[in-house]
Amino acid sequence: MSYCKWWWQRDDLRYVEDSLFLGEQNLYSLAYSAGSPCYVYNSTRIKQNILRIHCALESASLPHCIFYAIKANRNPLLLSYVRGLGLSGIDCCSPSELLLARQVGFFEEEITYTGTSVSNDDLAIIARHPGIFLNCDSLSEIRRLGTLAPGREIGIRINPNIGLSYGANLKLQYSGHKTTKFGIYKDSFLEALQLAAQYNLKVTGIHCHSGWGFLNKQLPVFEMLLNELCWYVDQLKTPKYINLGGGLGVPIVKDDSPLDLEAWAKLIAKYFAPRSLKVFVEPGDYIVKDSGVLLLQVTTVERKQDKNFIYVNGGFNINLEPAFYELPLEVVPVVIRGRETSYTDSGADWIKVTIAGNINEVIDIFAEDIYLPPVQEDDYLAFINAGGYGSSMSSNHCMRGNFMEYFLYERNGAFSD
Amino acid sequence: MSYCKWWWQRDDLRYVEDSLFLGEQNLYSLAYSAGSPCYVYNSTRIKQNILRIHCALESASLPHCIFYAIKANRNPLLLSYVRGLGLSGIDCCSPSELLLARQVGFFEEEITYTGTSVSNDDLAIIARHPGIFLNCDSLSEIRRLGTLAPGREIGIRINPNIGLSYGANLKLQYSGHKTTKFGIYKDSFLEALQLAAQYNLKVTGIHCHSGWGFLNKQLPVFEMLLNELCWYVDQLKTPKYINLGGGLGVPIVKDDSPLDLEAWAKLIAKYFAPRSLKVFVEPGDYIVKDSGVLLLQVTTVERKQDKNFIYVNGGFNINLEPAFYELPLEVVPVVIRGRETSYTDSGADWIKVTIAGNINEVIDIFAEDIYLPPVQEDDYLAFINAGGYGSSMSSNHCMRGNFMEYFLYERNGAFSD
Repeated sequence: MSYCKWWWQRDDLRYVEDSLFLGEQNLYSLAYSAGSPCYVYNSTRIKQNILRIHCALESASLPHCIFYAIKANRNPLLLSYVRGLGLSGIDCCSPSELLLARQVGFFEEEITYTGTSVSNDDLAIIARHPGIFLNCDSLSEIRRLGTLAPGREIGIRINPNIGLSYGANLKLQYSGHKTTKFGIYKDSFLEALQLAAQYNLKVTGIHCHSGWGFLNKQLPVFEMLLNELCWYVDQLKTPKYINLGGGLGVPIVKDDSPLDLEAWAKLIAKYFAPRSLKVFVEPGDYIVKDSGVLLLQVTTVERKQDKNFIYVNGGFNINLEPAFYELPLEVVPVVIRGRETSYTDSGADWIKVTIAGNINEVIDIFAEDIYLPPVQEDDYLAFINAGGYGSSMSSNHCMRGNFMEYFLYERNGAFSD
Repeated sequence: MSYCKWWWQRDDLRYVEDSLFLGEQNLYSLAYSAGSPCYVYNSTRIKQNILRIHCALESASLPHCIFYAIKANRNPLLLSYVRGLGLSGIDCCSPSELLLARQVGFFEEEITYTGTSVSNDDLAIIARHPGIFLNCDSLSEIRRLGTLAPGREIGIRINPNIGLSYGANLKLQYSGHKTTKFGIYKDSFLEALQLAAQYNLKVTGIHCHSGWGFLNKQLPVFEMLLNELCWYVDQLKTPKYINLGGGLGVPIVKDDSPLDLEAWAKLIAKYFAPRSLKVFVEPGDYIVKDSGVLLLQVTTVERKQDKNFIYVNGGFNINLEPAFYELPLEVVPVVIRGRETSYTDSGADWIKVTIAGNINEVIDIFAEDIYLPPVQEDDYLAFINAGGYGSSMSSNHCMRGNFMEYFLYERNGAFSD
């Protein structure tokens, strides 16, 4: 019998004996003292994720900047940590996010802003931040910004008509399968440049965000995208940067392999190193998703007709991905019960279960027909890969919106023996 | 040429000349002074909706209580108004909702509570409210409540294995198409009664909520459901009430007819009048949905490839139904532009448009390929039927969560001429 090797285990997220640890933190101890629902984020993993992107782009000799997409997680402790690292800027999509980025200590020059449906009120705030990298998403925005801030440098968000996403999930494809609301299409791009020129706006960058969560399988499509982007860049008189948006994926189920960042960076270099552009990337989920877990407690274990339900003390309103985007979510025990510690990945005592939340709605199911070791009422479950688009999208639906957020650091040197 | 008759027009929501009014309020004037996004609710419509249910149940000679499902909209002004009317109690599904109902002035005896995945922390709060009508949703809940509060009266939420919902939308069917997490199924019901007896819990009611938004087409299924419920009621020694949950629908597209409440009540009477039970109903959307509109301002009008996009200054995070439940949402102009006032329902100058929000996500589309009279940037649009599950489910995703909420009363007599 092979000992269990959970696919998602890594140095900072693994079982020590039967207990799940994130960094140095025993998650059972934390859930016991903090209560639940509780999000827990590991600072070390965030740093590793950012550094991994840096290294890949470095090794491809690409001048680059990383902008963390703040919408993935705006927890202030996390933002403060990211600021302190000094390895990335911030990518914003609303005036409030822009102001928050500034409040946290990011300089204007460390901020990109790419909105959709930008209002005049938004533009008024944007105009008061002349140093940020603004990417215009429509002719209308160029016209209105031009009136407000003639002479400014801008980028143009284009729509490449090519979609990238985890699996074939159309809810996550910003482009390609049909006309979407984002960016300026090829048939209007030259008009956009003329319009910008009319207001003396200097177009120095091209921005493109094409989808969410792409992995190695999608790299050939990513290359098509890069090839397509060259046309846009080559229309600019004074191009300074190409902004590739976010969308870098992390494995979320067993069969996913981690994205090969070296291969990704080499592709970028193939198209853009010759053009001497700065490469901007705006990862959100890639930086925070696998840094976080959500801890919930089991309220009820009960068979209903043909299904074994495990009910937890949180609902889809605090972690929307399964209900909203139909994305799988890995649920694992915080403490493993079972035949001593000799369980296997598909141990004989594992049970097919459905994990249900505490909201009175049909869609409030976290995972359906998954296999888990035996679980009892009052046990804790960890939802891994919960660091992005969890707390930041949460609502107080049914007044079930309360949760804690813990941010884990390495042990404080001043207190070591 | 027939003059326009919008299908949703009624006494308190209609165009006066070219301007949309809710109650006595010109919505353009309101949007202009309040700004947007702005939810507006009309008290009069809420009263009418509750009274309509009362009248139907009265005319079927059914002793009854109406409990407003607070999760549909917990705006404090709205709750205060509903309390003041004195026509209904409150239906809750979480401890915080229960405490809010009490804070607003509802007595325990005016409150029903039906949870799912009820935790021990939840039960501790519930146990301190011995007067509410508690419906237990699982054997586990009966066992744990019995330990905490032996001797208490309870209802049992059953799962009838019959689904009711608007259209065939499975995201809104609480039962029937497959085993769901809700309630106690027939195969466990007698065990539930035994378990209750073991703790001396007196089971005096049966609760059943089977789906969302049903209209006349679903009444035959509703009758099957009533028939099925009789079996459960007849197992009780001292039945006092049958709680039919919520789910009463309102028309949301042109082809929907209003639910025939008289027919609905007659069906209930057919099965339950002979049993001398009190009939409880827990409508949420039926009471508030058509009382409210969401006002948004057009930021951008732009054609992209083959589509005419109209972008507004709010996103799916403040009104989730289209993105989340794939429910159609009626979007109408606050002020109609067009050929004088002689427009028709399918006027020659109407344009096929897609309404997009201000969140950087693919699913942030409010309505696709609908027809509207000409719309320009800075115009206001009204999203009708936005009174339920709009503000209450909203999130601060992308920090775009701000909106106003106005509650409209009839004109104050003290200020009339």
